[in-house]
Amino acid sequence: MRNVALLARFDGRNYHGWQRQQNGMTVQQRLEEAIASCCGGSHTLYGCSRTDAGVHALSYVCNFHTAASIPTKKLVPALNCQLPGDIRVFDAIEVPDDFHARHSCRGKRYRYLIDPRQVADPFLLGRAWHRPFDLDLSVMRQAASRMLGRHDFSCFMAADHNHKTTQRTIRSLHVDGFGDGLVAVEIEADAYLYNMVRIITGTLFYCGIGKLSVEAIPEILKSRDRTLAGPTAPPDGLYLVEVQYDISLQRKA
Amino acid sequence: MRNVALLARFDGRNYHGWQRQQNGMTVQQRLEEAIASCCGGSHTLYGCSRTDAGVHALSYVCNFHTAASIPTKKLVPALNCQLPGDIRVFDAIEVPDDFHARHSCRGKRYRYLIDPRQVADPFLLGRAWHRPFDLDLSVMRQAASRMLGRHDFSCFMAADHNHKTTQRTIRSLHVDGFGDGLVAVEIEADAYLYNMVRIITGTLFYCGIGKLSVEAIPEILKSRDRTLAGPTAPPDGLYLVEVQYDISLQRKA
Repeated sequence: MRNVALLARFDGRNYHGWQRQQNGMTVQQRLEEAIASCCGGSHTLYGCSRTDAGVHALSYVCNFHTAASIPTKKLVPALNCQLPGDIRVFDAIEVPDDFHARHSCRGKRYRYLIDPRQVADPFLLGRAWHRPFDLDLSVMRQAASRMLGRHDFSCFMAADHNHKTTQRTIRSLHVDGFGDGLVAVEIEADAYLYNMVRIITGTLFYCGIGKLSVEAIPEILKSRDRTLAGPTAPPDGLYLVEVQYDISLQRKA
Repeated sequence: MRNVALLARFDGRNYHGWQRQQNGMTVQQRLEEAIASCCGGSHTLYGCSRTDAGVHALSYVCNFHTAASIPTKKLVPALNCQLPGDIRVFDAIEVPDDFHARHSCRGKRYRYLIDPRQVADPFLLGRAWHRPFDLDLSVMRQAASRMLGRHDFSCFMAADHNHKTTQRTIRSLHVDGFGDGLVAVEIEADAYLYNMVRIITGTLFYCGIGKLSVEAIPEILKSRDRTLAGPTAPPDGLYLVEVQYDISLQRKA
């Protein structure tokens, strides 16, 4: 039995997220069907995270155990032949037997793309959050710096959700402005609460348009009250960029 | 009566090209419907070119005459409210009465995007031509230089098509390689024969993979024989980038 890790890139617009569902096509189902057709039989694929419907990935990691004889390197073209064009596998790597895409994960990096320009870009439809407002990036950066480190992030968690612990560590949080006017929020943390990146983005957006002050951020964190934070940004602008492990997996697509 | 020019940007994947058709939705129809709902009554929209099904535009120019009272500047948000997200109007400009988007056109610039990387990018699905081959850009550039200037370009015209004259002037033709591995063919000409950019791209691609030599280009031009040139690249990678007139219209989106 080999344990094989796949690195995949997908446009999430046509999927009900990663995880298999009764009603609605998911990325996991598409990949498991492709694996079944390349390796024979049924294989369970372990994903690094349950991405929501409409969320994208530049480098998603998943793994499965197989007794199939197909060489690991040949899996990439073989799987891509079976997959729809909005999901591509760009690497397949044999990993130690105890590697698990979710349990072995040490951290993840996400990017959230905001399009604050007057007229939305049709080429970013479903791929960015179009909010035509003047954003004060320096205020957003100050607010971001107040979120760094280990905190109870209950205030940035979907209200109807439960986690064993709500302590997380944000290792870095950047707000970048690009020449074409787009703005990206880039975050790296050890783990995330449900909707955490989208609520952090909505909160930074509120700071950027003056609806929340930088000083409010430590208060909101302390309050653990979801209603004091900003809105949940839609899934459209969210990209899983990198998944970190103790072993090296990531190669450039 | 005002003569109003619209500058639009569209993702062509969901459309049967620009021009109204009996069967299939087109960009012209969508825009005319939006104009009817903002200006009342029926208006004929003149487009700068008949783009093919699946072709994109970063800056498409069209114009219509109207007696409606809505201020020109208010047309942009009003039209965008009526349009689907894959078509956006980013400017509306009052132009002289005799301006005609096609007849007044002095030249156009197109870009053709080739993705020669091993694995296609799911975010470029329908937006680039994926051909996983090593391209020799310096050979492609030499071949491009042989196409510059005024020629009879019959060899680069869809075989079943007719034009009054097949003389055209290519003012510039560049092959650019980008850091992420993508390759763009960028062409500017006074006018184009049917499928000319796509056949030129296919011919440059054949030069880039060694299937045609640089020296063959002048021979192919002289022959006026379509069958000697390269294949017709698919519409996916083609973008109308700029339309040129004696008056200044283009503003940045």
